[in-house]
Amino acid sequence: MFQQFLKTSRARVERALDIWLPATTQDDTQLISAMRYSACGGGKRVRAVLAYASAEAFGFDNEDALDAIAASLECVHAYSLIHDDLPSMDDDDLRRGKPSCHIAFGEAIAILAGDALQTRAFEILTSPELDIAPELKVRLVQELANASGASGMVIGQAIDLTATNRTLTQPQLERMHLCKTGALISAAVRMGAIVAGANDEQLANLSRYAQTVGLAFQVQDDVLDVTTETSVLGKPKGADAALNKPTFVSLLGLEAAQSFAKELHNQALNSLSSFDYRADHLRNLSGYIVNRSN
Amino acid sequence: MFQQFLKTSRARVERALDIWLPATTQDDTQLISAMRYSACGGGKRVRAVLAYASAEAFGFDNEDALDAIAASLECVHAYSLIHDDLPSMDDDDLRRGKPSCHIAFGEAIAILAGDALQTRAFEILTSPELDIAPELKVRLVQELANASGASGMVIGQAIDLTATNRTLTQPQLERMHLCKTGALISAAVRMGAIVAGANDEQLANLSRYAQTVGLAFQVQDDVLDVTTETSVLGKPKGADAALNKPTFVSLLGLEAAQSFAKELHNQALNSLSSFDYRADHLRNLSGYIVNRSN
Repeated sequence: MFQQFLKTSRARVERALDIWLPATTQDDTQLISAMRYSACGGGKRVRAVLAYASAEAFGFDNEDALDAIAASLECVHAYSLIHDDLPSMDDDDLRRGKPSCHIAFGEAIAILAGDALQTRAFEILTSPELDIAPELKVRLVQELANASGASGMVIGQAIDLTATNRTLTQPQLERMHLCKTGALISAAVRMGAIVAGANDEQLANLSRYAQTVGLAFQVQDDVLDVTTETSVLGKPKGADAALNKPTFVSLLGLEAAQSFAKELHNQALNSLSSFDYRADHLRNLSGYIVNRSN
Repeated sequence: MFQQFLKTSRARVERALDIWLPATTQDDTQLISAMRYSACGGGKRVRAVLAYASAEAFGFDNEDALDAIAASLECVHAYSLIHDDLPSMDDDDLRRGKPSCHIAFGEAIAILAGDALQTRAFEILTSPELDIAPELKVRLVQELANASGASGMVIGQAIDLTATNRTLTQPQLERMHLCKTGALISAAVRMGAIVAGANDEQLANLSRYAQTVGLAFQVQDDVLDVTTETSVLGKPKGADAALNKPTFVSLLGLEAAQSFAKELHNQALNSLSSFDYRADHLRNLSGYIVNRSN
């Protein structure tokens, strides 16, 4: 049943991205093609799935609203991957098992495609076609923007850049990841809950869940970076180690990193103790994140 | 009086940017410094000034709301300049009379600073501190996002990139600029009017004004590129010609380009015929744009 939920959620966000992204007709600049190349047809869709699961914890089922939220999250995530892969950043040639956007379309169009995907996320959330109350649209934009910008994802990436070749303490490493991936993962969980009418206490619990899961996601990423082959990973094995980036594995060792991921999973479950069976997909997602193989 | 209005408007948006951008304390990544370096303390602030002038045409004077709108527009403009100046794009080393962001902070931080400035614009417009009705906040985000993204500014920049070394017809050149600079200039005028409660007919007239003024701005930019020295321009003289980019001067010749700018100014004035004296700053702005020397 959880596997079915994952499959359905991924299919839904694929369809939503196809609908919400501009059509490629008459685009001789390849901008739209590059946006679609990076946003559509791939990825684990963790952020989209978290938003769906979070709304489900409240029994909320306005499909169009959730699909739009899921698409906006995946637009921001895709934009961040395009920019992170650029030669002046992490310089990664492979992403989701295919050439990175700048390899396929050139650096200039890749930068612009990232820029336009970010913008698109905010266009989606404020679209007049979307049947969400204006107060909620404003909160959704606010959540997504706060999580993506200079106090969230982007500062996390900036810290990551300056961390190469440095030794970080565990609290420093955790802070970097709380910004770099945790903020958007939190936004995914919170946006699904906000549109479903969650109150402040419920949002606080879900934020604790999301931060723990976000960190677990990163710890597992670091584990997979050293234990899994490129063909399974969809990106080069050992890329972080090659760049001499601090990781939970380099800091704690492989076994302790694996234990830490399990511990975070338990903490995530505890944060959901006041939720009923409808939060089971959120519970299963936490397990999926620490047990995944790519 | 118009000079005083220009001066006051610029001072207001400077102060607003200083308030709305994150403080540089404890930022050892230079991300925030780079954002402030590019967004604060310079530029003609045409977009901010247009938003103020447009609101004034309706006698609207909620200063905080207008300052936030002005700051959001200048954040998007500053982000676009940072990314346009990158080596893989226009490769410009000089901007507003000082080294471009990537020269001062490196390419990676420059890309991220641009990204975060874009995000900040949407954070500003949806801030809970801002006393604007939620319906209007949603419309403001929508205007800004539509103007900035894949159907506005970014597609314009993509067309511009592919236009290098090509001959464009006048309609093609106009379309490129309507997207690249016209869309955000239109958004500036429209956002000032929307928050002031403009109706659809008024918005339509202001859109015609803005599109004409936006085109005039670009024609004059092309004229200045060949007639004005680097020290006055704040960016390298002849940069477009050196890149073999199509311009109104290369297409029409210098004299005809100058006449075209004057003709557009007259069209802009005609679009404002149904507005009273309170639109005089908009009228003067059109004249300022075609007569400016940098």
